[in-house]
Amino acid sequence: MPQPFTTQDFAARMTRAADAAAAAGLAGLLVAPGPDLAYFTGYQPTAITERLTTLLLTPGREPVLVVPKLERPDAERATGAGAVRLSDWSDGEDPYATVAPLLEDGRYGISDNAWAMHLLGLQGARPGTGYTSLTRSLPMLRAVKDADELTRLAAAGAAADAAYGEILTVRFAGRTEREVAADLAALLLEHGHSQVDFTVVGSGPNGADPHHEADDRVIRQGDTVVLDFGGLKDGYGSDTTRTVHVGDDVPEEVRRVHDVVRQAQQAAFEAVRPGIACQEVDRVARAVITEAGYGEYFIHRVGHGIGLTTHEPPYMVEGEEQPLVPGMCFSIEPGIYLPGRFGVRIEDIVTVTGDGGRRFNSTPHELAVVH
Amino acid sequence: MPQPFTTQDFAARMTRAADAAAAAGLAGLLVAPGPDLAYFTGYQPTAITERLTTLLLTPGREPVLVVPKLERPDAERATGAGAVRLSDWSDGEDPYATVAPLLEDGRYGISDNAWAMHLLGLQGARPGTGYTSLTRSLPMLRAVKDADELTRLAAAGAAADAAYGEILTVRFAGRTEREVAADLAALLLEHGHSQVDFTVVGSGPNGADPHHEADDRVIRQGDTVVLDFGGLKDGYGSDTTRTVHVGDDVPEEVRRVHDVVRQAQQAAFEAVRPGIACQEVDRVARAVITEAGYGEYFIHRVGHGIGLTTHEPPYMVEGEEQPLVPGMCFSIEPGIYLPGRFGVRIEDIVTVTGDGGRRFNSTPHELAVVH
Repeated sequence: MPQPFTTQDFAARMTRAADAAAAAGLAGLLVAPGPDLAYFTGYQPTAITERLTTLLLTPGREPVLVVPKLERPDAERATGAGAVRLSDWSDGEDPYATVAPLLEDGRYGISDNAWAMHLLGLQGARPGTGYTSLTRSLPMLRAVKDADELTRLAAAGAAADAAYGEILTVRFAGRTEREVAADLAALLLEHGHSQVDFTVVGSGPNGADPHHEADDRVIRQGDTVVLDFGGLKDGYGSDTTRTVHVGDDVPEEVRRVHDVVRQAQQAAFEAVRPGIACQEVDRVARAVITEAGYGEYFIHRVGHGIGLTTHEPPYMVEGEEQPLVPGMCFSIEPGIYLPGRFGVRIEDIVTVTGDGGRRFNSTPHELAVVH
Repeated sequence: MPQPFTTQDFAARMTRAADAAAAAGLAGLLVAPGPDLAYFTGYQPTAITERLTTLLLTPGREPVLVVPKLERPDAERATGAGAVRLSDWSDGEDPYATVAPLLEDGRYGISDNAWAMHLLGLQGARPGTGYTSLTRSLPMLRAVKDADELTRLAAAGAAADAAYGEILTVRFAGRTEREVAADLAALLLEHGHSQVDFTVVGSGPNGADPHHEADDRVIRQGDTVVLDFGGLKDGYGSDTTRTVHVGDDVPEEVRRVHDVVRQAQQAAFEAVRPGIACQEVDRVARAVITEAGYGEYFIHRVGHGIGLTTHEPPYMVEGEEQPLVPGMCFSIEPGIYLPGRFGVRIEDIVTVTGDGGRRFNSTPHELAVVH
């Protein structure tokens, strides 16, 4: 297990964020429970409820963590609590009246997933303040990972690879998607994941719906099957997709489509280097698929960021002009989905290095045969 | 199992909500994924992400459900989808540009838990619109349950009661809180819960922290133990608390404190009737505890609503002047917490009837002895 993050680690993250806020012309940042708050303090409330919890980061001032009085003992136990001033409010008090005096007139970045109710409460309590989405105003804040985070993401990827290696040996034909998905989940846990976020098993026509999870369809000889699985290991995410075929008799069209997706994934990976725009990664993959005549069947963006969650900014999507920066980590997952027939997707997690990209997954991209 | 809700049920809920919005002077309602969207359509996206999903309810117009194109097949399968017009947006498009033309200048109610990022996106895309929290503007929308919902809540309560009856027979002394909590979770599932939200086992001093869940403390002879457990059965919530004692030798102070809490719970329950303010329920319980000299040790509000979630508005708290209405369902859960020593809490779910209240829990309030 990696060394846990220390109070100093969290303090450094908070200082860096406050500096970045100042540089972006923001009066400060309001951080909500979820991955943002976990990133800055290690604190994860038992449940995210209507009771306001928020971390206020202001350039040049001590961070303040506002919590419901009831949850103060939990917050105090968090590693990052040693680097913040705790302030609480009790049931029956107005939480916005507790936060408002801590704010100055100006523009604040607020966590994307903060509750609308809380944003409205703050807008009402302090009309002189303005708000902007944290990932729009400071997109690099959690997107660029430090060495300790990269180690964790690499370990999560390796564990997912080990789970994939073993799933190839289980029985597919004659079992339901749900049964194979349960095997996959068990393997992720066996290989050190603490949490499984998804185990997609999309067999035959189900594979043509990129959002399909797993249902009671019985997998048959001759099916093409999309396996997309991920979760958290030591707090950081894995997310991998491979497409397999049940039985050795692989139809020519499946081979061809799979090969196009493989080439698209490879081309997009080779395009990764500091300075190119996120949308460029999408464009490179899409060009390969379009040229092969399958453009209309690649119906989603090519990738998303990963870190404390398995799905976060930055997005590798048309229109996203943010340049790649060393330390960014994201998926590259082109796919082709032929409605009513089958789907193919191949996905690795990749990080941006000083002069290119590095994969956190290393299992073969070739179409594996299962039985 | 109860009959599933039909498309007509969902359509009626949407019409009722649009009418209520009009009566409240709102231009419409924007409903986010989570319990609100489940209530109106039965649709629960696999994951709640940054991709905008929202249901727009406008008086006199057909409801519109805006979804990411990728998730459209999932949305189409929801029972309520038959009563809405589906509209989708693709990766790389601006989702707010899809929603903005559907809005009119005016004030909209928006789900409390909608993402701040989405609210900011809408505020930016349609400057002529204003927003208010859904539960602040229309607090009765989900708070008042219909007959089908009351049946489900009663069944969830009865199942929780059955689990409690059995937990009294398991071994407490010498086992950890976590072990007893796992037993409690298994019993809830055995009695038909599909999901366990919490199983608090607060033994000895841990019981004095109302937010404590369960840890590795070994329960001992002579401990007072708070058991607070709940989850969902057929989509509706249970939430029950009883306090037990390990061994027959109950100290006089534990008896006295338990008796005060029992009387407070009973008095608050007897106060329930249509027309009294939510805060009155809190005041009645608090008065009993304060009079007995323990006022400073009752450190939370007396209750919260329950329905599609185990914790929702309305809140029985000082300052909440909302009058009780028949069909409202909420917890009454006074407690006394003596720091470093022990805690006592007793909680039932209650619904408001035409002329009083009815409990959904019927296990005895007397201090049970376990071994």
